[in-house]
Amino acid sequence: MESNLNLAELFDAKSVAVIGASSVPGKWGFGILSLLLAKGGRDVYAINKKGAEVLGVKAYQNLREVPGPIDFAVVVSSARDTPAAMEDCVCKGVKYAVVIPGGFAEASEEGARLEREVVEIARRGGIRFIGPNCMGHFDTYSDFFTIPFNFPIAKGPASMITQSGNSGIAVFALAWQAGLGFAKYINSGNEADIRFEDFLEYLGRDDRTKVILGYVEGLRDGRRFLKLAREITRRKPIVMLKAGRTDDGARAARSHSAALAGSEQASAAAFKQAGVIRVEEVSDLVDAALALSTQPLPRGRRVGLLSMGGGLGVITTDALRRCGLEMARFSSRTMEKLNSALSDRWSHGNPVDPGGEPVVYPCIFAMMEDENVDAVMIVGGVGMVGGLVPLMPTPPAAKAAYERLMEAAERQELENLDRLAELRDKYQKPVITASMLRGSIMKGAVSEKLEQYHLMPYTGPERAAKALARLVEYSEYLGVARTPGP
Amino acid sequence: MESNLNLAELFDAKSVAVIGASSVPGKWGFGILSLLLAKGGRDVYAINKKGAEVLGVKAYQNLREVPGPIDFAVVVSSARDTPAAMEDCVCKGVKYAVVIPGGFAEASEEGARLEREVVEIARRGGIRFIGPNCMGHFDTYSDFFTIPFNFPIAKGPASMITQSGNSGIAVFALAWQAGLGFAKYINSGNEADIRFEDFLEYLGRDDRTKVILGYVEGLRDGRRFLKLAREITRRKPIVMLKAGRTDDGARAARSHSAALAGSEQASAAAFKQAGVIRVEEVSDLVDAALALSTQPLPRGRRVGLLSMGGGLGVITTDALRRCGLEMARFSSRTMEKLNSALSDRWSHGNPVDPGGEPVVYPCIFAMMEDENVDAVMIVGGVGMVGGLVPLMPTPPAAKAAYERLMEAAERQELENLDRLAELRDKYQKPVITASMLRGSIMKGAVSEKLEQYHLMPYTGPERAAKALARLVEYSEYLGVARTPGP
Repeated sequence: MESNLNLAELFDAKSVAVIGASSVPGKWGFGILSLLLAKGGRDVYAINKKGAEVLGVKAYQNLREVPGPIDFAVVVSSARDTPAAMEDCVCKGVKYAVVIPGGFAEASEEGARLEREVVEIARRGGIRFIGPNCMGHFDTYSDFFTIPFNFPIAKGPASMITQSGNSGIAVFALAWQAGLGFAKYINSGNEADIRFEDFLEYLGRDDRTKVILGYVEGLRDGRRFLKLAREITRRKPIVMLKAGRTDDGARAARSHSAALAGSEQASAAAFKQAGVIRVEEVSDLVDAALALSTQPLPRGRRVGLLSMGGGLGVITTDALRRCGLEMARFSSRTMEKLNSALSDRWSHGNPVDPGGEPVVYPCIFAMMEDENVDAVMIVGGVGMVGGLVPLMPTPPAAKAAYERLMEAAERQELENLDRLAELRDKYQKPVITASMLRGSIMKGAVSEKLEQYHLMPYTGPERAAKALARLVEYSEYLGVARTPGP
Repeated sequence: MESNLNLAELFDAKSVAVIGASSVPGKWGFGILSLLLAKGGRDVYAINKKGAEVLGVKAYQNLREVPGPIDFAVVVSSARDTPAAMEDCVCKGVKYAVVIPGGFAEASEEGARLEREVVEIARRGGIRFIGPNCMGHFDTYSDFFTIPFNFPIAKGPASMITQSGNSGIAVFALAWQAGLGFAKYINSGNEADIRFEDFLEYLGRDDRTKVILGYVEGLRDGRRFLKLAREITRRKPIVMLKAGRTDDGARAARSHSAALAGSEQASAAAFKQAGVIRVEEVSDLVDAALALSTQPLPRGRRVGLLSMGGGLGVITTDALRRCGLEMARFSSRTMEKLNSALSDRWSHGNPVDPGGEPVVYPCIFAMMEDENVDAVMIVGGVGMVGGLVPLMPTPPAAKAAYERLMEAAERQELENLDRLAELRDKYQKPVITASMLRGSIMKGAVSEKLEQYHLMPYTGPERAAKALARLVEYSEYLGVARTPGP
């Protein structure tokens, strides 16, 4: 089953050459070289037909002119010039490469011929490469980046393999907003040499990778993928977006990555059997990864819900039920606790609507301690220092009183968050939060604590409910949660 | 059919009293009074049992002590104190009120009795009121606000009626991010006096309201609602989120607004017949309103799609197809234009993937001019000055060249946006855009122009596709678009 492909050096080269380096902003040979230079930490060489200087560094007209050894090459030359560039790599003893340009098998017959030629040359020289038709790869821990853009990307537990570079960019943008960090990233492109399945195998063994995200249009070796997935999902979750699921989508995929999508029904069943969590939207990839990498696995699908406001409670209940989750029935002990914490106006059941009072934590703690509750969801109630008070206008006459109130509320909130995190550890129950107001009223110490404890709210109850459902799905697959009978 | 209820004064009172005004931050009588004072423009009186001063204004112990006339009362007293407060309003000749507190019919038998008492007193005195158990209302044009929070809310074409205050807040937060403005807003609460249907009738005639948003758990008079809706949707769209659609959701709704949800299937069919656009998520309300209030109605469901990057093209095609939209087949004239604008590496069909080149507008213009295209969607291609160049790192050596490039690209982008808006007017085809990078790279003059032309991107292709599908749905209902055969 296991291949002998060790990709460690692919993610941490000592010396790198950019073949097709450019000093023209907007060119990929500009973006990639300047990011490599900005990151530092390894020898970077610019190769450019004109020679002279590029971005302040000496440019060599040919890779073979570089005096020292080169481990890794980023090929940015046109498709037509790539075979020659690969020949140079062979001569120079390069071990790994990424081939950026398009114009290969995805574009035309002539492109397919060029692609075969590049593969032959690389094979002959023992070079393994990513691409062509891709936007690079990176490792945040070794700080090695071959993508041409300077996105804000945090270190973290997720690694991604994508057949689409722009979908990767979309995921970075959403991940940054959501607070999800990355370990490794590969835009596999046409997969002429190293395939999706190879990267998957490597990430399965990579200790920094706690959750694997995948965007695929079609797999070259579906059987190997499923075998690998079955083995990896025992240890870490795999979340996949399979694009091209509709008729026209599949047609578009053929012209994009030349991938042949298999039967939709067959692949859905196979994914499920292999424990692969399958999602529909780009944002689902990020939402699921966040929950799977930070929350304990629930022991069942019974959710305790607290919602500040009855309407959001109804919406969230609808969302949870649509995801196949169940509303927990509180124990009589929990009902007693809720009755004593809240005024008579509370909803007297699940979802808990405190009825306008900002009494949140006693209710949350009661749900955490209830053995009939497998997971807790909180809508609009956590991290909101003093309820919605920060949004009230504060006339000069009330300024001092307002500040006192906010200070006390913040202190209280921080203590409550500590306690909530303690209870989550103790009972191993996931806590998922949602709020549309994220960002507008969560600031300073409270915001930091929310991040530290991975309690930052999802934007909206629907996204939160979907993320929780993925946790339950994975937990049931692993047998941590009991699968409900028919 | 039409009632004689004229609610104009409800949205623009000359003199307002807050009964239960408070100087304690966090209390609703604090938030409402301070916002009314901050807005100015009308006489505001504080009523407070203790008398003395509240937030720098004289407080009266009783409404009847106020020297001048009072048009409007905001009752913030507890449920128990509300009958007496309403009696005072009758004595003082108040015409309209909003009753904020909960603890009425939604909470208990005793609360229901109190609610009936308040209604009787109001009826006797000819007072019409919003609530109880609500979070106020507003009119951005008269600048009259009875909500307790100081949200950023822009003037604009949407008006909303909601049975849930917190869902209203969620909508404001999303609307602000998306650039949707409001005309009027009512949180109708328990609807003891003025009902959802009354507000709907009023907004149907309100010239400032171009699109009506509704959040309901249950309607008191479903038949009247449908009759009104049928009449109003001929002139302006109604977008509704009906919560409590699942078993547990309906149960939660009963304890929230005491609303009795009817049969799910029956109401879905009735809504559709009346031309009501029904959505599932809170964010859908905002997304649909934005499209319906800014875009021309498409003449069919054939979409021309341009996507920067093949993967996003596949994802978007899947999303469009899932929404029931069709991929347009370009005319041979359009194919010629695309072939001459793009290098051989383009996707040669719909979706248009320029194949890595930032050649966007000639393709978009060609689709706008193609009579086989009813609507144009653009993913990641509009407003992105110089493609993704702004995200490239810029070493000092390239700074001057970079700035020249960006200036030229911005000039070009602004001209292209003017042309795109012209073509949209000429051909009356909606243009829907999407990007995850919104905010990170759209700045300055380009950003302003995108807002001016309502071309600001949706966050993600799935949300954009859903918004476009609502446009098509409404257009087919009105008969502007031909409904496709079976």
